[in-house]
Amino acid sequence: MDQQLETQIIARGKEFFKSISGEAPSIFNKGWWTGKVMDWAMKNEDFKIQLFRFVDVLPYLNTSESLARHIREYFSGDGMDVPAVLKFSANATGIGGAITGKLMGSTIRSQIEGMGRQFIIGENVKEAMKGFVKLRKDNFAFTVDLLGEATVSEEESDAYALGYHEVVDALAKEYQKWKPLPGNGPHKDFDWGSSPKANFSIKPSALYSQAKPVDQDTAVEHIYRRLAPLYRKIKAVEGFLCIDMEQVKYQDITIDLYKRLRSDPEFRDYPHIGVVLQAYRTDVQHTAEQLIGWAKAEKLPIAIRLVKGAYWDYETLMAKQCGWPIPVWTHKPESDIAYEKAARTILENHAWVYFSCGSHNVRTISAVMEIAKSLGVPEDRYEFQVLYGMGEPVRKGLLNVAGRVRLYCPYGDLIPGMAYLVRRLLENTANESFLRQSFADGAELERLLENPEITLKRELKQKDAEAKAKAERLAAQGLTPKSDLFPPFANEPFIDFTVATNRQGFTDAIAQIRKTAGRTLPLFIGGKDVTASETLPTTNPAKPSELIANVCQAGRPEIDAAIAAATAAFPAWRDTPAEERAQYLHKAAAVARRRMFEFSAMQVLEVGKQWDQAYHDVGEGIDFLEYYARDILRLAPPRRMGRAPGEWNHLFYQPKGIAAVIAPWNFPFAIAIGMVSAAIVTGNPVIFKPSSIASAIGYNLVEVFKEVGLPPGVFNYCPGRSAVMGDYLIEHQAISLIAFTGSMDVGLHIVERAAKVQPGQAQVKRVIAEMGGKNAIIIDDDADLDEAVPQVLYSAFGFQGQKCSACSRVIVLDSIYDKFTSRLKQAVQSIDIGPAEIPQNFMGPVADASLQKNIIAAIAVAESEGKVLVKRDNLPAEGAYVPLLIVEGIAPKHRTAQEEIFGPVLAVMRAKNFDQALELAMSTRFALTGAVFTRSPNNMEKARKNFRVGNLYLNKGTAGAMVERQPFGGFMMSGVGSKTGGPDYLLQFMDPRVVTENTMRRGFTPIAEDDDWI
Amino acid sequence: MDQQLETQIIARGKEFFKSISGEAPSIFNKGWWTGKVMDWAMKNEDFKIQLFRFVDVLPYLNTSESLARHIREYFSGDGMDVPAVLKFSANATGIGGAITGKLMGSTIRSQIEGMGRQFIIGENVKEAMKGFVKLRKDNFAFTVDLLGEATVSEEESDAYALGYHEVVDALAKEYQKWKPLPGNGPHKDFDWGSSPKANFSIKPSALYSQAKPVDQDTAVEHIYRRLAPLYRKIKAVEGFLCIDMEQVKYQDITIDLYKRLRSDPEFRDYPHIGVVLQAYRTDVQHTAEQLIGWAKAEKLPIAIRLVKGAYWDYETLMAKQCGWPIPVWTHKPESDIAYEKAARTILENHAWVYFSCGSHNVRTISAVMEIAKSLGVPEDRYEFQVLYGMGEPVRKGLLNVAGRVRLYCPYGDLIPGMAYLVRRLLENTANESFLRQSFADGAELERLLENPEITLKRELKQKDAEAKAKAERLAAQGLTPKSDLFPPFANEPFIDFTVATNRQGFTDAIAQIRKTAGRTLPLFIGGKDVTASETLPTTNPAKPSELIANVCQAGRPEIDAAIAAATAAFPAWRDTPAEERAQYLHKAAAVARRRMFEFSAMQVLEVGKQWDQAYHDVGEGIDFLEYYARDILRLAPPRRMGRAPGEWNHLFYQPKGIAAVIAPWNFPFAIAIGMVSAAIVTGNPVIFKPSSIASAIGYNLVEVFKEVGLPPGVFNYCPGRSAVMGDYLIEHQAISLIAFTGSMDVGLHIVERAAKVQPGQAQVKRVIAEMGGKNAIIIDDDADLDEAVPQVLYSAFGFQGQKCSACSRVIVLDSIYDKFTSRLKQAVQSIDIGPAEIPQNFMGPVADASLQKNIIAAIAVAESEGKVLVKRDNLPAEGAYVPLLIVEGIAPKHRTAQEEIFGPVLAVMRAKNFDQALELAMSTRFALTGAVFTRSPNNMEKARKNFRVGNLYLNKGTAGAMVERQPFGGFMMSGVGSKTGGPDYLLQFMDPRVVTENTMRRGFTPIAEDDDWI
Repeated sequence: MDQQLETQIIARGKEFFKSISGEAPSIFNKGWWTGKVMDWAMKNEDFKIQLFRFVDVLPYLNTSESLARHIREYFSGDGMDVPAVLKFSANATGIGGAITGKLMGSTIRSQIEGMGRQFIIGENVKEAMKGFVKLRKDNFAFTVDLLGEATVSEEESDAYALGYHEVVDALAKEYQKWKPLPGNGPHKDFDWGSSPKANFSIKPSALYSQAKPVDQDTAVEHIYRRLAPLYRKIKAVEGFLCIDMEQVKYQDITIDLYKRLRSDPEFRDYPHIGVVLQAYRTDVQHTAEQLIGWAKAEKLPIAIRLVKGAYWDYETLMAKQCGWPIPVWTHKPESDIAYEKAARTILENHAWVYFSCGSHNVRTISAVMEIAKSLGVPEDRYEFQVLYGMGEPVRKGLLNVAGRVRLYCPYGDLIPGMAYLVRRLLENTANESFLRQSFADGAELERLLENPEITLKRELKQKDAEAKAKAERLAAQGLTPKSDLFPPFANEPFIDFTVATNRQGFTDAIAQIRKTAGRTLPLFIGGKDVTASETLPTTNPAKPSELIANVCQAGRPEIDAAIAAATAAFPAWRDTPAEERAQYLHKAAAVARRRMFEFSAMQVLEVGKQWDQAYHDVGEGIDFLEYYARDILRLAPPRRMGRAPGEWNHLFYQPKGIAAVIAPWNFPFAIAIGMVSAAIVTGNPVIFKPSSIASAIGYNLVEVFKEVGLPPGVFNYCPGRSAVMGDYLIEHQAISLIAFTGSMDVGLHIVERAAKVQPGQAQVKRVIAEMGGKNAIIIDDDADLDEAVPQVLYSAFGFQGQKCSACSRVIVLDSIYDKFTSRLKQAVQSIDIGPAEIPQNFMGPVADASLQKNIIAAIAVAESEGKVLVKRDNLPAEGAYVPLLIVEGIAPKHRTAQEEIFGPVLAVMRAKNFDQALELAMSTRFALTGAVFTRSPNNMEKARKNFRVGNLYLNKGTAGAMVERQPFGGFMMSGVGSKTGGPDYLLQFMDPRVVTENTMRRGFTPIAEDDDWI
Repeated sequence: MDQQLETQIIARGKEFFKSISGEAPSIFNKGWWTGKVMDWAMKNEDFKIQLFRFVDVLPYLNTSESLARHIREYFSGDGMDVPAVLKFSANATGIGGAITGKLMGSTIRSQIEGMGRQFIIGENVKEAMKGFVKLRKDNFAFTVDLLGEATVSEEESDAYALGYHEVVDALAKEYQKWKPLPGNGPHKDFDWGSSPKANFSIKPSALYSQAKPVDQDTAVEHIYRRLAPLYRKIKAVEGFLCIDMEQVKYQDITIDLYKRLRSDPEFRDYPHIGVVLQAYRTDVQHTAEQLIGWAKAEKLPIAIRLVKGAYWDYETLMAKQCGWPIPVWTHKPESDIAYEKAARTILENHAWVYFSCGSHNVRTISAVMEIAKSLGVPEDRYEFQVLYGMGEPVRKGLLNVAGRVRLYCPYGDLIPGMAYLVRRLLENTANESFLRQSFADGAELERLLENPEITLKRELKQKDAEAKAKAERLAAQGLTPKSDLFPPFANEPFIDFTVATNRQGFTDAIAQIRKTAGRTLPLFIGGKDVTASETLPTTNPAKPSELIANVCQAGRPEIDAAIAAATAAFPAWRDTPAEERAQYLHKAAAVARRRMFEFSAMQVLEVGKQWDQAYHDVGEGIDFLEYYARDILRLAPPRRMGRAPGEWNHLFYQPKGIAAVIAPWNFPFAIAIGMVSAAIVTGNPVIFKPSSIASAIGYNLVEVFKEVGLPPGVFNYCPGRSAVMGDYLIEHQAISLIAFTGSMDVGLHIVERAAKVQPGQAQVKRVIAEMGGKNAIIIDDDADLDEAVPQVLYSAFGFQGQKCSACSRVIVLDSIYDKFTSRLKQAVQSIDIGPAEIPQNFMGPVADASLQKNIIAAIAVAESEGKVLVKRDNLPAEGAYVPLLIVEGIAPKHRTAQEEIFGPVLAVMRAKNFDQALELAMSTRFALTGAVFTRSPNNMEKARKNFRVGNLYLNKGTAGAMVERQPFGGFMMSGVGSKTGGPDYLLQFMDPRVVTENTMRRGFTPIAEDDDWI
């Protein structure tokens, strides 16, 4: 630490605070409604959550009834009244105690909207212009940001780009009239002599609704197409463009885009374009250095705005949910440290980089000032930026001390504005917010200006002590988790396509698969490869001429052989300790993990599954292996029953016998290995019959179990034609257990056949059947459509709708019907359809040519029953493609509302109100998945209670259940209620036993620790 | 506390100790094997248990192989070697380190037998006589006790009585030659001038193998018949008879017997008969006062030996297992206090009572001496007794101080001798043993002689502090059980027939039932009584002419009505909170408890169930109600799955729908209400079809649920003929759930029929089927036959063998075959057969005339397949009786080894060794219950592993599983592995659901306490 610099920074900070002494941001002013409410929110976490959620939903509450209802639901649950603080200004109107709900509603609405307006410079261009003029009068520069970056379709992206064109045009007319803000820079027409007066900030992801990390080039390409014309216009008006940085997933795209635009021959000579870096990213220093290096190499001066970063909660949460390393610093002072370090690097390179310091933190600001000073950076090479409406004293202080201050000014509709408001409120009220600490909590000056490295050390020490104390408390309570065979279960991470090697991994693996395509896959029986006379080809559905493999087909003799092998293996396998069986699964998971890309690529080619979904299918398979490996350890130890002295009663489980596992092709690795591993780990040898459509993927299981050295006969791979050996296997007297996933018709057939006890049969067969679904998503009138539209899209058309969990009905409330369907229609029209191996494509062919016909027939029925909303039938010429169809006007009486189609067909149903929507949702024979998009707490509760399906999602799509987190499976005609990947699943594969030992002999008995003794 | 007396007692005690200073009981002499082993056992609880168990089994180890094997199994598990202490004397023989297993075995055997001989005066009359002569030389009197009181048949009781006749005869020849021991009493021919030289102690229960508290008169009658001739002989030789006191259950019988004998005109004039009271009984003072009062009233001088009591562990354990109040003091000093108090009462009444003070406790002895002195009791009115071989210094000290000392001298075979040895070793090594404290632990004199009231106060204070500390520890750990809706589950207490009101309760209730017999029982549908045109009579199987009731029969229209009522009730019942549903069960339990005798009596009359078993059936029904009421509270709260932040996943359960409950007649209340209550508490309305044989008992459920006010339609009572409405009910599309208990054939029929999905059916039906058994008990070659014989008897013939858990095969190891079968045969011949309402009868009629035919046919098959060991066909003329049959020579190929007979037919199979026995046990299609009687730790483990049945019992019979302690049910053709009364049962009645809420909005989310957050 440079002690001299440190002293200067602190002195500067003190001076800064002194210059604004006594002022406070208006948001904390307790004399006003906002200040009171913020104060209450900071004291009461529950209220804060409700308040912010309410702010979020507010723009959707178009009627006073809806408004009043939501206020009631959000703020007066459990018999409580609406908090006094919310009523404050309603009372202040003078009407006194007896204010009506309606009046209160409108008062609260206007207060909150007022709060929003505090952060938004205007709802339209005209208002914004007025705001800019006013700001400039106060000597502030601005950058303008158009709200509404959540685009779900290309039409919306077009509209968003258009919005920018409008504001550029509007400014073009005005800015010439404005006097530049005073300063010493060389360029007399520019503010401070250094910076264009018209300054624009833009969120690039908004310019291409289909942007995804897996296909960066396409994303950059599409954004570029919309951004270049805009930039051209900005250049024409001598303006400045800053490309904002959004979530981590867009960082590489954004930087690529920036470089491309900056180095484009058309724009190389125009340096007024910047990009944003976020100090909360753990890789910020590296990114900054790379970018500066690039600028130097290209000999192109650049501009960087350095901020702390605005998506911390989101990034952390997503990383946690996806199993990724957290990409942002987890201690606030770490961001501050990184900021100062990156700022120094940028300032050191001021010859190449124009620097915008974006921060409200006085310590950070002071540090930047002093670093710049110590480095002798000319003033026209850096400026300061703060957000419009945030921390007014800071901007004032900045103006006093530095002069060059730019306000980041969002403008636009109140709907996206409210979302923006929530982010600002969160920032203001976070415990670690500098503004909150400075102005609401009144922390000490020394603490506020402290070098963040010192703060970090203290915080780490304190957290360490807390962790230690907690560990000691747990140990004292005997609750410290005992060291088990395996570390605690964690889901396999999702694939992170921002990592280039992950993208390359797929490309390579697909090529690799192609190299070995066409080989003949044997059966695997009793630990040996077994060839059969009959083989069946399996092909690429996107290119039927491409042979994947020829697969040997088991007939009755092979089934007999497999059952004989399983029978021989049973006694030893049954007696193998659970720990050992669990180890096999754990090792199998490791093998699958090693071959992850290869197995995933096989799915891309054999069943036409998109990259991410193929990868997640293998990941889910690994999850099943790891979860069941652990769960058997939970279930295996005998449990003592009762505490009567003189007897020991132990309850434990034993395997049922030989299991037939009949797997589907849609989750060809995950579901197959899930059922197989559950059977195996509980001690039951398996006859595994994969679907003929996915037999090559099924062979991946052979490869896994071969490598881990599972004893011969425990796992037998027997693809074969159902007509030849299906019933034979099901009815075989030696089978005790059938695990099936597939259609309702086949499932019910198996249930019925298996129930008949055959001569010589030892057990009543247990059938575990996961069957179909006709899953609905309800769109409530207050649903967040930015989320609902893409989730419906993915739920209905992900993997071509070929999931039992897929959404095939969307039930939309009347008052939001048009808005939702038009956005959905546009979104559907924006997606690409084509081979799954090209990651740009959202949808591909169905898994096999044999499936096409049925789906096309169902499409005809749907078209006849309803009114087509969208039909995407511009399809590739070759391959098992079917049109994507959305039909409106479907009612429960229609076949399209009742029959599982298992393809990209979505029925839209209209509901008068939420209760009717629930009724419609429940109007089928199935009960598998369902979802509701709503921001009404009451409707959420109603759905919890009455939307009776196996897996219900609130504000989330119907697909993508994860092992442990969302044990999966339905009831009614969707299955027998077994729930894979959950705590009750393995029980089904076992029979319980109780052993009672009378421990009393001659009137004496050992007394156990936990006996109910005197 | 009388301080002066107290001072004298302590002085007396000190003098006593002084007189024996430096001496120690030989058992604690560490110079010898016994002393070393005792020392090790007192330091090492596990070794102590193994050692005592080994002592117990030792007499059964007839070959050196068996002996060596057991030594290995008992003492060298887990790779440990036999403890050095056991080898001590083998090494001491001088052969050195390399002793062979055989030699070690024989050495250990002889050491332990030597240990046994220390407590036994001789193995036969001749040896005993020698011992008596030697004792008398040392101035000790004696009382003789014949070992082997565990009689399981009337032949054994005869033999036991005969043993006493022999010893009386032998003494008669000798005792005249003996000089009386010196003393000042008036009777010159008696020892000490006061007591007959020939003194006999006898355990009355041994004299009637069928003695049971439920029928005290019969027990007293039968014992009297064998005891009176013996007493006549003793009187003839001027001897003394003491009737020993055994377990609590025999106390009333023993005292009745004593009074009867004492007051019999033949014996009134002969006062030399005593009885024993136990100070550890909490009612000892009352008993003593009552008895003395009786003596005074009858003007008959009596004799009382007061002891502390020898069955403390057993009594405590049994009370705990049966749910009874503990009948003995739970703090050792309480027994000492009670002793001193009762002794004072007896001594105060020395005019009427001759007192024998039986104790090794110097404090107690000193107190008695000083109390007697203070009361001026003449010396010829009291004496002291100690056990032969126990606490030699005490007997010496007594001789020194008091002079009048009698030794209690067991004699007889080493087999019962070893059991006696175990009791003595336990007494010596108990932490609270006075002898151990005095001579092994070397406690301080003051403490040893302390007034027990002071000791008690201190101990209570200490225990109190410990309990408090524990509570505080638990509270600090947050583990204090939170107050729930109900107190913790406890099984309904067994009926205690020593309580007269319990016996009277049955008699009264039977009479009461008879009063209302013959009424017509309506159906109960939708909360209303519904009469049907058809009725079916139900009768008393012991007296077919006795009509119990006419029961309305449901046909298809009534089933439709019931299903309609259930369907109407479903939505509201499903939505009723689990707590409320649980409350109905809890209240139903209270109703059943109140009407316990009535409901039990109904079973005695309608299905011919014995009193205790009828009572326990109702008790089990109550257990189901109470257990499921609690278990739903465990299962109802949604469980959070995973800990990913930003989403809440909750797993919970919902009811399946309408349940058909088809109940059997053999546990007509318990099983019926178990299935019904499980369905109801999980939210499923029920159509209940009782067996036609037990429809009146089935109506008890109506009475219970009516009284608790279950909503209409939730429970519907529909008895009816299977042929008319059985399949109709099973196949009904509205039924989601079938809970069945009954035969395999019917069960499999239901499984098959229910599997076919009917038009309009919503759910794949869940069938919960408990079916038959062909249960085996294995008798290992080291089995304790005193336990095995009565347990086989009860398992096979309790309730006429009409239990799915009944033993129908007994598999006996070769080397114990003759011994076991002959004892079993004798035992079977000793039981009484007749109407269940007469409690003396062990076996009654089968439940219905309709069952007779099949059983008689099966008997004919059994007789043709095997060789009859016993056939009890002397049966009452009227009633549905069938012969009790045991056949030998049955092999797995025989129908008698394979088919469930459901009657009193037992097949005996012979096995070469334990492995073959297990093989035989597993050679049927069933897997319900099984049992093994063995004292081999290894064979116990083998059975645990390989005796694969639903409920296996080690050293316990196959019948009588208890809710929670032994969740019940089998697999293979015995059922679908559901296990009633266990933690997995209710799950079957429900479908799991998961609700996932995405809690993230606009990138922010509440963070929950248990989130995996940073």
